[in-house]
Amino acid sequence: MVRTAVILAAGMGTRLGERTKHEPKGFIRIGDTPIIEQSIRKLVAAGINRIVIGTGYLAEAYERLALKYPQIECVRNDRYEHTGSMYTLYRMRDRISGDFLLLESDLIYEKRALDLLIGHRSPDVVLAGDLTGSGDEVFVETDEHGRLVNLSKKREQLGKVDAEFVGITKLSRSALQAMCEYASHRFDRQPKLDYEYALVGVAEKANIVVHKLSRFAWCEIDDEHHLFRAKHYIYPVIRASEAAVPPVKRNILLNPGPATTTDTVKYAQVVPDICPREREFGDVMQFICTELTGFVADPERYAAVLFGGSGTAAVESILSSAVGHDAVLIVNNGAYGKRMCQIAEAYGLNVVEFASPPDEAIDLASLENVIRQSACPISHLAVVHHETTSGLLNDIESIGRLCEKYGIQMIVDAISSFGAIPIDMERMNIGFLAASSNKNLQGMAGVSFVIARKSQLEALEAVKPRNFYLHLYAQYRYFLETKQMRFTPPVQTLYALKQAILETRLEGIPERYKRYSGCWEVLIDGITRLGLKHLVKKEHHSRLVTAIVEPDHANYNFDDMHDFFYRRGFTVYPGKLEHLNSFRVANIGDITEKDMESFVRLLEQYLTGIGYRVGRAAVHGHSET
Amino acid sequence: MVRTAVILAAGMGTRLGERTKHEPKGFIRIGDTPIIEQSIRKLVAAGINRIVIGTGYLAEAYERLALKYPQIECVRNDRYEHTGSMYTLYRMRDRISGDFLLLESDLIYEKRALDLLIGHRSPDVVLAGDLTGSGDEVFVETDEHGRLVNLSKKREQLGKVDAEFVGITKLSRSALQAMCEYASHRFDRQPKLDYEYALVGVAEKANIVVHKLSRFAWCEIDDEHHLFRAKHYIYPVIRASEAAVPPVKRNILLNPGPATTTDTVKYAQVVPDICPREREFGDVMQFICTELTGFVADPERYAAVLFGGSGTAAVESILSSAVGHDAVLIVNNGAYGKRMCQIAEAYGLNVVEFASPPDEAIDLASLENVIRQSACPISHLAVVHHETTSGLLNDIESIGRLCEKYGIQMIVDAISSFGAIPIDMERMNIGFLAASSNKNLQGMAGVSFVIARKSQLEALEAVKPRNFYLHLYAQYRYFLETKQMRFTPPVQTLYALKQAILETRLEGIPERYKRYSGCWEVLIDGITRLGLKHLVKKEHHSRLVTAIVEPDHANYNFDDMHDFFYRRGFTVYPGKLEHLNSFRVANIGDITEKDMESFVRLLEQYLTGIGYRVGRAAVHGHSET
Repeated sequence: MVRTAVILAAGMGTRLGERTKHEPKGFIRIGDTPIIEQSIRKLVAAGINRIVIGTGYLAEAYERLALKYPQIECVRNDRYEHTGSMYTLYRMRDRISGDFLLLESDLIYEKRALDLLIGHRSPDVVLAGDLTGSGDEVFVETDEHGRLVNLSKKREQLGKVDAEFVGITKLSRSALQAMCEYASHRFDRQPKLDYEYALVGVAEKANIVVHKLSRFAWCEIDDEHHLFRAKHYIYPVIRASEAAVPPVKRNILLNPGPATTTDTVKYAQVVPDICPREREFGDVMQFICTELTGFVADPERYAAVLFGGSGTAAVESILSSAVGHDAVLIVNNGAYGKRMCQIAEAYGLNVVEFASPPDEAIDLASLENVIRQSACPISHLAVVHHETTSGLLNDIESIGRLCEKYGIQMIVDAISSFGAIPIDMERMNIGFLAASSNKNLQGMAGVSFVIARKSQLEALEAVKPRNFYLHLYAQYRYFLETKQMRFTPPVQTLYALKQAILETRLEGIPERYKRYSGCWEVLIDGITRLGLKHLVKKEHHSRLVTAIVEPDHANYNFDDMHDFFYRRGFTVYPGKLEHLNSFRVANIGDITEKDMESFVRLLEQYLTGIGYRVGRAAVHGHSET
Repeated sequence: MVRTAVILAAGMGTRLGERTKHEPKGFIRIGDTPIIEQSIRKLVAAGINRIVIGTGYLAEAYERLALKYPQIECVRNDRYEHTGSMYTLYRMRDRISGDFLLLESDLIYEKRALDLLIGHRSPDVVLAGDLTGSGDEVFVETDEHGRLVNLSKKREQLGKVDAEFVGITKLSRSALQAMCEYASHRFDRQPKLDYEYALVGVAEKANIVVHKLSRFAWCEIDDEHHLFRAKHYIYPVIRASEAAVPPVKRNILLNPGPATTTDTVKYAQVVPDICPREREFGDVMQFICTELTGFVADPERYAAVLFGGSGTAAVESILSSAVGHDAVLIVNNGAYGKRMCQIAEAYGLNVVEFASPPDEAIDLASLENVIRQSACPISHLAVVHHETTSGLLNDIESIGRLCEKYGIQMIVDAISSFGAIPIDMERMNIGFLAASSNKNLQGMAGVSFVIARKSQLEALEAVKPRNFYLHLYAQYRYFLETKQMRFTPPVQTLYALKQAILETRLEGIPERYKRYSGCWEVLIDGITRLGLKHLVKKEHHSRLVTAIVEPDHANYNFDDMHDFFYRRGFTVYPGKLEHLNSFRVANIGDITEKDMESFVRLLEQYLTGIGYRVGRAAVHGHSET
C-alpha cells in the first residue's frame, strides 16, 4: 500500500506574474481553498499519511502549511532559482523509502486518479489524460504494450500520441534511484533538468506503464489562461465528481434521446433555490449561451437563444419567426422533416415541400431543380441534419452551398446531431440552427435553443409576430437587454445543462463522436453477426441512431423484446418508418463500447430465446459482412 | 435516554380481508418490506435496543421475526380475540421497566417522529399530526397548555381539535402503571378497551403532553383505502424524507415564484434515466394529471394537459386553441392581464379589452355592460385570478356567474393562485384554467398545464390550429391515446412535480393557504409597524404577494436593498406597476412565519441603516394599524 506522496513545489511560477509574487503557485485559490490544500486533502483521503514537499521559492509558505497538516514534511532546494524539478526531487531522495506518488504542486485533479494509481498492480505508472488542446501539453508516447517511450511538448518529435501527461505518477524506490542516477551525471550540464526527462531516461529499463484515464478532469496552472480554464471549466467538474451523494441506478437508454446521463449531471439539478431573474442566474444562462454557440460558431458574431421547451419548440420558433411572405422549402425525408411541414402549415406559411426517401441521400440536383423552378421566391430552406427516423445524416454542407448560390437562408434542425457531429455554422452556411439539451449534450430534457448570427436575429424584427412564447426576436432581444429569459425558465434543467456542457467540453465533441462511433461499430458488427440488417448505408449513416429491420420470425414481437431489455436496464425504441418494420437503437449518451457489447449479447439471447436462427443469411437491407 | 419500544400487534386486522388471512397486519409489504420491519429498522436507528412486541393473532409471524432482529421480545396475549389493545399492553407491563415508546404495528411514518419523542423533555408525549381527512381519524383535544384532554373518532364530542392521533407515544413507567391501574378495573366490563381510552383516563393526572408535527407523513393501515393511500401518497414521501443525501443551502425566495422548495422536491429530480415514452413514465404523467385535476375539479369529467414550458405557454395554449372567430373579452388589471392581450394580438384574435385599475376590485357592473354592449359576440372571457403585479385577487366566482349568464367560456390564468387558494372549477364556472409547477405547488420550473372539462377539450377539434407546440387539442388527444406527451417532456421536472404534489396533498391546500396567510400576517404587521404601506386592501388581497410602496427616503435604493437581503439568503423582487414605485414580497413556498419574522427584522435593519425613521406615520397607501 502506498502511503507516501512527494510534491514538487520549488518553482517560481513566473508566468503567473503578480499572483505568485507573495505566495508560491500552490497557494492559488480556486473555490476558496489553495490548490495545494485541495491536493493534500485528497491524498490524505486516499490513505497517504506522509507528504514530502520539495520547496524552494517562498518555502516558508509550505513550512507554515506543515503546521496545519501533520502529514507534511518539507525539504528545501535552496538552489531552486538555478535548478529544475529533477534536482528538487534529487534533494529529497533520502526521505523516500518505498513506493510513492509523485505530484506537481500546481495541479487540480479528480481524486479518482489517486485511487487508481495506488491500486494499480504496476509499481511504476504514469497517469495520462485525453488530449486537452490547452496549448501547453506534454504529450505521451507509448509502445504497443502501453509502456512509456517518450514525453515531449513537441508532438512532432513523437510517434503514436493519444494522451497527455498529467503530472501524477506512481514510482517505486528503484525507479527513483534509477532516475537520480540518470540525473546525477547530467546536473552539471543541465541543472534545470525536468523530472519528466529523467522519467523518460529510465523508462525502458524501469518498465514504466502509462495509464490513460478518459474524460478525466484535471488542469495544471502555469499561466492566466490555465487559471481561467481551471476555474470555469475544470474545477466545477472536479467538485461535482467528488460530491458525497449516493450513486443512481444506471439505465442504458438506447432510444434516440433523452440519453443516458452521468450522475454528476443528474445531481447538478440539485441547487439552492434561486430566482431566475437574479444576476447570478443571468450569468449562468449567459455562460450556457456562449458555450453552446462556441460549439458551432464564433460567439462574437453568433448567439444562442434559450427556450423552456423541447427541440420542436425551437424549430417552431425559427419557422414561425424567420419566414416572411416568401416560401420556405422544406426537405422532408423522415418524421422530423414532416414535422417541419406540419409546423409551417399550422402558421399558414408558403411551403414548397421536397420529399426524399428516408434511407437514401438527398438528390442535390433535384433539390436545385426545385429551387430553380419554384413559382414563388424561396427565402428559406429547412432541413433536418440527422433524421433519427432512419439514422440518415443529411449532407447539410452541400445543401448549404446550394443555399448560398441562390441567396437562401438555411434552417437546420440539428436536434439529434448537435454535440456529437462537428458542425461549423459559418462554413456550412447555416442561418438558423435548432437543438436541445437532452440528446448528445447529455443534459436533461426541458431546454431547447436556437443559434443564429446576431445580425440575422436583429433582422427578425421586420417579420410580423405570429405567436408569443416562441417568438424568436422577442426572446433574443429580451435576453440581450436583461440577461433574463422572458418567461420563467426551467432553472434546474439549465444548471444540469451547464454541467453537461462542461462535461462535453472536457470530452471534446470530436472525441465524443469517436466514442459514439466506437459504440456504433460494436452495434453494427453485432447485429450483422446475428444476421440482422440496418437500413441506411454506412456512408450516409449518422452512426448515432440505427434503424434495424425487424427479425423475420413468427415469435418476434417488438413489445416482448422491449420488455426483455427493459427488465435488464436497457431501453430500445420502436421504428417510425411507414413502409418498413424496423426498431431503433441509438448509441448516444454516457455509454461505452462495453455497454453496446452487453446489448449485443442480450440481443443474441433474446433472438435465440424466440427460436430465431442467429447468423443466417441477409435477406434485405444493408449487410456489413 | 429511551431505549425500549413497545409495539401493539395482537389485532386481527379483519378489515383487510384476505391480506391478513395468513399474516398479521404488520407484515403487509409496502415498497418490498413488511411495514413492521420498516418500523423496527427506524427504532433501531433511533437508538432503541429493546423492542417488546405484544402479539396475538398469528403470533408465530412475530416470533419468527424475532430470530432476525435480536432486539425483539414477544409477549403473547392469548385472549386477543376477546380483548383490545389495552389488555395486550397490560399483559406486557412487567417487561417494561423505564420510559418507552409505544407504537401500533400497522403504521408507516417518518423516522423524525422517533427522534422528536426521544428527545422531548416531557416523559409522557402523545404524537399528533395535521388532520388527514382519512375518514378514520382519532381526533385529539388539548387544553390551553397543549396537554391531552381527550381522544375520539367523533369530532363532535370534543372541544378544540386541530390535530390527529398518530399512534406513536412516549410514556413513563408511572404513566403505564396508572393506565394499567385504570384499565384493570374496567377489563371485566370492557375487555376490548383500547389503550387510547386508558391514556385519556390518566391524562389529567399524568400530565400527558401532545406534540403536533406539521406536514408529517404517516399512515395507519386498517383497510384497503388506507393501504392505497399509504402506498401511493404517504410511503413515497416518507422514503424521500429519509434519503441519505446532503442538505441543500436554504434560500428564502420572496419573489412571486419560483418559490422556495423542500430538499425532497429538489432531490426528486435525481432519478434513474428513463425514456419518457415508456409506460412507466406514462403512469407518472397520468398520476400528475389526475392529481392536478383533483385539486380543483372532478378528474372523471375534467382533465389536465401538460406542457413543457412556463405558465405563459399554458395561457397561450388556451387562447390560441380555444378562441374561434368570436371575440375574447380580456380583463386587464395588471401585467398578466396585459400579457393575455399581447398573446391575443399576436394571433390576431378578436379582442375586447376590459381595463381596470391594478389595485382595486373589478367593477362587475361595468364588466357586464361591456359584455352587453359588445358589437361582436363574445365567446370567451379571460381573467387572471391573482395578479402578482399588485397582489390583487380577482373575484373569479362572480365573474364566472356573469359568464354563465351570458353563455361565455371563462379562461382563468391561475398560475399564481393554484395550489394555495382553493379553487372549484365547476362551482366557479371556469372553462379553462392555466397554471404551472413552480409557484404554490412548490415544484421546479419547466412544466405548465391546462385543466378543462374533457368535453370542452374534445370540442377544440373544431377550432383551426394556429400553432403546433402549444396546440391544446393535439396535446390533449395525443396523451389520451398514448399516455405520452407529443414532444419530449421535461422528465426530471415532472418527477419533482410528482413529489411536490404529494407534499401539497400531505399538507392540504387549505392548510397551505393558512400557512401562507400566517406568513402574510407577519409581513403586513411588520411593514405596518415599520411605517410602510401596501397597495391592495386586505379584503381584495391574495395574501400571497404584496406590493409595498417604496420608502420615501433619499438613501433608499431598491438594488441596494435587494443586495442587502440577497447576501443574507433572502430574495426580494422589484415592482411592476407603471405609475407607482413599489417593491414586492411574496410569502409562498416552503417558508414559515419564522422566516417572515426574520425578513421583517432584516427590513428594519436595512431601513434603520439608511437612516429611515421606522414607524413614522403613513403617507399614502393602505395602513393596517
